[in-house]
Amino acid sequence: MKPAYVLASSDSSARPKRNLKLEIEYDGSNYSGWQIQNHQRSPEARRRTKKTIQQVLEKTLKEILQQEIKVISSGRTDAGVHALAQVVNFYTDSNIAHEKLQLALNSLLPHDIVITKIEDAPLFFHSRFSAKSKVYRYTILNRKYSSALLRNTTYFFPHFLDVVLMRKEAKVLLGRHDFKSFQATEKKERTTVRTVRKISIKKDKDFIFIEIEADGFLYNMVRNIVGTLIEIARGKLPPESMKRILLSKNRIYAGPIAPSHGLCLVKVKY
Amino acid sequence: MKPAYVLASSDSSARPKRNLKLEIEYDGSNYSGWQIQNHQRSPEARRRTKKTIQQVLEKTLKEILQQEIKVISSGRTDAGVHALAQVVNFYTDSNIAHEKLQLALNSLLPHDIVITKIEDAPLFFHSRFSAKSKVYRYTILNRKYSSALLRNTTYFFPHFLDVVLMRKEAKVLLGRHDFKSFQATEKKERTTVRTVRKISIKKDKDFIFIEIEADGFLYNMVRNIVGTLIEIARGKLPPESMKRILLSKNRIYAGPIAPSHGLCLVKVKY
Repeated sequence: MKPAYVLASSDSSARPKRNLKLEIEYDGSNYSGWQIQNHQRSPEARRRTKKTIQQVLEKTLKEILQQEIKVISSGRTDAGVHALAQVVNFYTDSNIAHEKLQLALNSLLPHDIVITKIEDAPLFFHSRFSAKSKVYRYTILNRKYSSALLRNTTYFFPHFLDVVLMRKEAKVLLGRHDFKSFQATEKKERTTVRTVRKISIKKDKDFIFIEIEADGFLYNMVRNIVGTLIEIARGKLPPESMKRILLSKNRIYAGPIAPSHGLCLVKVKY
Repeated sequence: MKPAYVLASSDSSARPKRNLKLEIEYDGSNYSGWQIQNHQRSPEARRRTKKTIQQVLEKTLKEILQQEIKVISSGRTDAGVHALAQVVNFYTDSNIAHEKLQLALNSLLPHDIVITKIEDAPLFFHSRFSAKSKVYRYTILNRKYSSALLRNTTYFFPHFLDVVLMRKEAKVLLGRHDFKSFQATEKKERTTVRTVRKISIKKDKDFIFIEIEADGFLYNMVRNIVGTLIEIARGKLPPESMKRILLSKNRIYAGPIAPSHGLCLVKVKY
């Protein structure tokens, strides 16, 4: 594999001076996600859609650094999905100090995108390829009424959920498996095998937090897993369904996809 | 004093059947506050302003109960101020069950207003006059960068704040005092004496939570107190300023008003 800066630089003969690594918090509510896959959309559909977080970030970086910047992220997030610490890197010859760049970015970026950390990384560092694992958190508000203040960051679900059963069923996902059953049907990844390192399901008052750490995630994987866990926990799918669905390697057996606004990328580990 | 239902009913000869008490959570970001004081505004200004929470609630209640409803709240909140548990009551002859009314309200109200509780109260219960005390919480995010996800519910303040000093200075506010120094200048209350029962200032990671409980609050009182505490805690006002400002009974000595979006009405006690 070529070093990351070769993949990213428009002039591959020039070795860039710096590889800057940024951590970003964002509220995905007002965006079409991290990046649109333009080849999937007609020009008309592209005009209709909202901005992407990547577009806004690259435009702001260009404004500050006075050069075209192409950022590499740890991975895309869907429309409505949030991040506490998305990681990106980009190459630049600018000498700008971390603190100065962070202040400039945060004063020019809209309030729903915040740069929480900037550091220099080795030139070979690549936000996606260097990542060892990623942690996503899904938050369910499980009570009779919604929350006005948390409406964009929790999935309000008013029916009873058996959290103990949810925990038991989720265990079969741990380890290295083919997660094809939980991949968005329109996607065709080379391999659908991933390793789930950790799943924790915590209940705190009316909230249920589902945290999943894996070496990588298929498109919609977390939301499809959560949607399936909800179907089991409310009694719409029988116990041991998770095992059966995982082994089926067929999306049609899994539950419906859980809404995007309950999902948050909380950590990328390197 | 006349019983509350006489004050509220348009036909004071009719004794209403029920006095319903509601608890409401709302995100104040998209509203002109709980209620606009219309007499202060020109017709043109009124057209320009956003809706109030009271307007939206009364319109929705009318739609469900098929009668004009006038709600009584525990007190107004300003534009941008939030509530976890605002309390209102209103009189009705409807026999509607609590759960049915709550479901109907929450499905018709916008997502930033949520009814969290409904119960029958004695006819003499009045959300404002019956209240023993109210608790407000002001949240400061005290670090170098803002938060994308909490931008509407915390006041981002990047400079150092001495929380120990803040706590010490706040103590002089405890008890029964004339809080005229912290009242919005345009306001003329009959009496500006209030009793502050409790002040707690907690630091948790990058957050500073200032909670104030009092038997009543003057217009802008919490925000003016917080603004003053910030000026002291950042060293712009000398120690013991709080005592001096309180005794001065003059708004011009207090600090600038803190922004509304950091403020939340968390509890009304009866």
